[in-house]
Amino acid sequence: MSYTPPINEYEFFLRRVMNGAEHLADVTDGEYDIDDVVAILWPAAKLAAEVLQDTNVSGDRVAARIENGQVVTAPGMREAYAKFIGAGWSSVGAPVEAGGAPRIVSAALTELWSAANPAFAMCSGLTQGAVAAISWSGTPEQKSVYLEPMAEGRWTGTMNLTEPQAGTDLAAIRTLARPQDDQTWRVSGQKIYISWGDHDLTENIVHLVLARTPDAPAGLRGLSLFIVPKFLPDADGRPGHANGVTPIALEHKMGIKGSPTCVLQYEDATGFLLGELNQGIPAMFVMMNLSRLGAGIWALGIADRAHQAAHHYAHDRVQGRVLDEPEGTPIARHPDVARLLSSSASIITAMRGLMLQTSIHLDRAFAGDAESLELTDFLIPVVKGWLTEEAIGITSDAVQVHGGAGFIEDTGVAQYYRDVRIAAIYEGTTAIQANDFLGRKILRDRASTASRVLDMIETDVRQLAEAEDPVAVATSERMTRSLASIRDVTALLLEHAAEGRRRDAHAGGVPYLKMWGLVLGGWIHVRTLQAVLDTRDGITDQSHRRISEANAYGAHHLSRVAAHAQSASAGETGY
Amino acid sequence: MSYTPPINEYEFFLRRVMNGAEHLADVTDGEYDIDDVVAILWPAAKLAAEVLQDTNVSGDRVAARIENGQVVTAPGMREAYAKFIGAGWSSVGAPVEAGGAPRIVSAALTELWSAANPAFAMCSGLTQGAVAAISWSGTPEQKSVYLEPMAEGRWTGTMNLTEPQAGTDLAAIRTLARPQDDQTWRVSGQKIYISWGDHDLTENIVHLVLARTPDAPAGLRGLSLFIVPKFLPDADGRPGHANGVTPIALEHKMGIKGSPTCVLQYEDATGFLLGELNQGIPAMFVMMNLSRLGAGIWALGIADRAHQAAHHYAHDRVQGRVLDEPEGTPIARHPDVARLLSSSASIITAMRGLMLQTSIHLDRAFAGDAESLELTDFLIPVVKGWLTEEAIGITSDAVQVHGGAGFIEDTGVAQYYRDVRIAAIYEGTTAIQANDFLGRKILRDRASTASRVLDMIETDVRQLAEAEDPVAVATSERMTRSLASIRDVTALLLEHAAEGRRRDAHAGGVPYLKMWGLVLGGWIHVRTLQAVLDTRDGITDQSHRRISEANAYGAHHLSRVAAHAQSASAGETGY
Repeated sequence: MSYTPPINEYEFFLRRVMNGAEHLADVTDGEYDIDDVVAILWPAAKLAAEVLQDTNVSGDRVAARIENGQVVTAPGMREAYAKFIGAGWSSVGAPVEAGGAPRIVSAALTELWSAANPAFAMCSGLTQGAVAAISWSGTPEQKSVYLEPMAEGRWTGTMNLTEPQAGTDLAAIRTLARPQDDQTWRVSGQKIYISWGDHDLTENIVHLVLARTPDAPAGLRGLSLFIVPKFLPDADGRPGHANGVTPIALEHKMGIKGSPTCVLQYEDATGFLLGELNQGIPAMFVMMNLSRLGAGIWALGIADRAHQAAHHYAHDRVQGRVLDEPEGTPIARHPDVARLLSSSASIITAMRGLMLQTSIHLDRAFAGDAESLELTDFLIPVVKGWLTEEAIGITSDAVQVHGGAGFIEDTGVAQYYRDVRIAAIYEGTTAIQANDFLGRKILRDRASTASRVLDMIETDVRQLAEAEDPVAVATSERMTRSLASIRDVTALLLEHAAEGRRRDAHAGGVPYLKMWGLVLGGWIHVRTLQAVLDTRDGITDQSHRRISEANAYGAHHLSRVAAHAQSASAGETGY
Repeated sequence: MSYTPPINEYEFFLRRVMNGAEHLADVTDGEYDIDDVVAILWPAAKLAAEVLQDTNVSGDRVAARIENGQVVTAPGMREAYAKFIGAGWSSVGAPVEAGGAPRIVSAALTELWSAANPAFAMCSGLTQGAVAAISWSGTPEQKSVYLEPMAEGRWTGTMNLTEPQAGTDLAAIRTLARPQDDQTWRVSGQKIYISWGDHDLTENIVHLVLARTPDAPAGLRGLSLFIVPKFLPDADGRPGHANGVTPIALEHKMGIKGSPTCVLQYEDATGFLLGELNQGIPAMFVMMNLSRLGAGIWALGIADRAHQAAHHYAHDRVQGRVLDEPEGTPIARHPDVARLLSSSASIITAMRGLMLQTSIHLDRAFAGDAESLELTDFLIPVVKGWLTEEAIGITSDAVQVHGGAGFIEDTGVAQYYRDVRIAAIYEGTTAIQANDFLGRKILRDRASTASRVLDMIETDVRQLAEAEDPVAVATSERMTRSLASIRDVTALLLEHAAEGRRRDAHAGGVPYLKMWGLVLGGWIHVRTLQAVLDTRDGITDQSHRRISEANAYGAHHLSRVAAHAQSASAGETGY
């Protein structure tokens, strides 16, 4: 299936829309420029196409299994993983503080890996999240033992939160860590839904496990984070004795079947406290925040892949006389197929721009910029919640464009539809993102960050309104209406909360988050329009595409802002 | 998984909203009353639960296979089917003209079978469609040979349209039927995507095959319909010699895996012309229209089943402290879970009401009512297009309510999500429904039927506005806005067409069809409100539920009308 890695899109955003050159110079002290980024991405795309993609379908068809207490992955996975880390891609994608490239690069890489093989991409993403958590909270000794092999991908990392009775509600975690005389801990309990919780790709696996300690306070404040390696590193840092952790079952899932989802049993496993006692949640959240951004990008990668498949199918397939077009015109020109394709293309651009903008803020936040840190925190739940929900719709539209063939597994697009469905659930469901967004990012500061963001967007919208272009005018009108709508709903939700009607406010949380996603996505198109209208003559074809995408986004997506506004304003009782 | 068959809902609609008693008296000459309908549906629900449901998961897990040129279905299917026809359910569900119950009964049965086992339900649905086609177009001899065994389900029927190069575009069909001296035909060619195209449930299968005859005109006008039995009936009407039709492959599908989807090879198979030469399309459309209505009902059955699973899960599962509620409150009271559940419940009611109203018109159309015939034709593409699209969203919401468990196949809801996806594709994609609706039902009569329907709705909305109830007032306001919006868009699309901008009109076809679905669904709630507000004191609990459903429908679904209006008005270029 032919796929164009969206590297030109990254380049366009960095060069023309997001001031990437200055950003890179700033956050890498001149080590990277845009050419470097592009020079990294092309060979990554090549590896994705030539190595990772091969195991995407086979991983879906051949289930991983447990043999002698170990997970055996689908044929080809080991070899693909060896090539992946052998070429150094794990290290490039590692967090900056562990020697990796800037976040905008690892974000782009995440999209490439996810488009090629979503199940595979999760393994690397989780590992890098664990690396971030250890580099953030680890002791110097822990860092020296774990960071290098993990950043290089020789060991992988996992995130162990969920238990049968503790999914969304981490306060219900029961896994117990008992202190030992030698400063280690004995960890016992059962964790479920652990992605890549066991496998045969590497010589070691490093589990980060949320657990309760004896006499700890109840609830979230009594949770601590532990490093529990599958094999205990010996004095030379090599994997030594097997630890007390066993995969006792694998889940039979609807999608991402290439990724073994384990039930892990911990029985007196040796653990090492990561960070402070009872500070497990903040330590885990370093990893969690990166994982949430990563989940949004992951979903984008799958969605674009599915969309591109639909695009190619529609341009190849001739079926039925296309209205007012010559015989032999492919189905891409059927008015409704054209609508589905342009609607998807336009929102993919918005999604990609938004995650890239967020990654830029994350780079700046790591470099110490306080405002960017605030914006990162503000944007991450929207990127996670909105991108994943839209990705489900895009893959569904891609199935639809294929007609009956889309429902047949051999065509490939059905797998994307199945795979991507988990994105709106894992790393916190969309409702959890909305709770975080509404509760911590809107209500807590009485929408002062939100207002700043809206003002920023409004400035760009006003400027666009002055352009002499019908799409620019239409877009600025649509955005002006959308901004008014989001301000109204924000005021209403603040009012609900102020009057103690918190349930009414939170009943609107998800549609409110979606409004934000749509408006932030519109902002990407506003800035894209500004960029291409400035120099329209220079790059005609691409400019026309971008202008028509902005227009399609307005017609088919900004139009949804008002619907979500009514839904978000309805409160618990519905009116 | 516990499931309440929606029989009380049918009873409510028939008794209180849709004048069912009078309708039944009219169309059955007093043979059926509402009590009879209810008396039929309860044992049907019992059989669905006790017999059909068992094979739903096993049919999904164990693929059908081809053995010695015959399809072998999953274990248990044969036994379930034997019980199904043994209890006479095939006959009850047969078209009225073949001795079946009124359409409102068979519609309800279709929902029950589909909720229990979507793959199984297709087999019976297709058979009844074939019975309708034969009873409509068959010779007396054909009727005497085929109708009885098919109506009783001892033989099943299939619909053979698609070929590799002819999906949506039936004009491209190449299967050839050559005339023989004995008035039979020799049929040769390949048909694909034939649901239940072969199986081991019955002693015979009757294929209705669209084919071209030598020297026939090009295009649709050169297609004829043929009866091609798997085994040729002998002089006594018993299955005799094997005919030249072979299942040469089965598709590996994302869902409805219990239903074998065949590639059928016809090699000099003996066929019998059904209806007139070159009149294959109109003859097939008798079957096709019933199948489209059936597809909408089928999707509704799956959606309600998934929704009920989510409802039960959410009321059992305790997870996380629910905002402003006591500890131990189940997740159903989390504001966003409550929103998802009430949003789904409210649209399921609207969908069910709309398909029941359509079935009433179909009963009256068969009884000779010209206006009902017109309304049936008007409503069927909306029922097919809108119900199937909404059903996809409802099953997705049901997965979401389950959180991580929803992605695990053992939970069951993932299968509904996979199964229902085909509904918006088979029997004509949503775009095909929109083309039919916009082209034949709106533009052709310059929206005169549409205006009549909107006037009818408006009368009810005005009446509701006078009720002293806040939900009634809110609903009538929302509906008034929605009606204005649909009238505006209708005028615009007529204008596009009048100006020769047909592509602009058709680019809006699908969102326009969805507007109609939402508004017709709103009409169901308007009439439901009228019914319960008339006698609110009598049936308090149920009335409150219905009132709050109407309200949720307004907040979360009528709100989408304006969004679709913008999308429908955008034309090809997007503004």
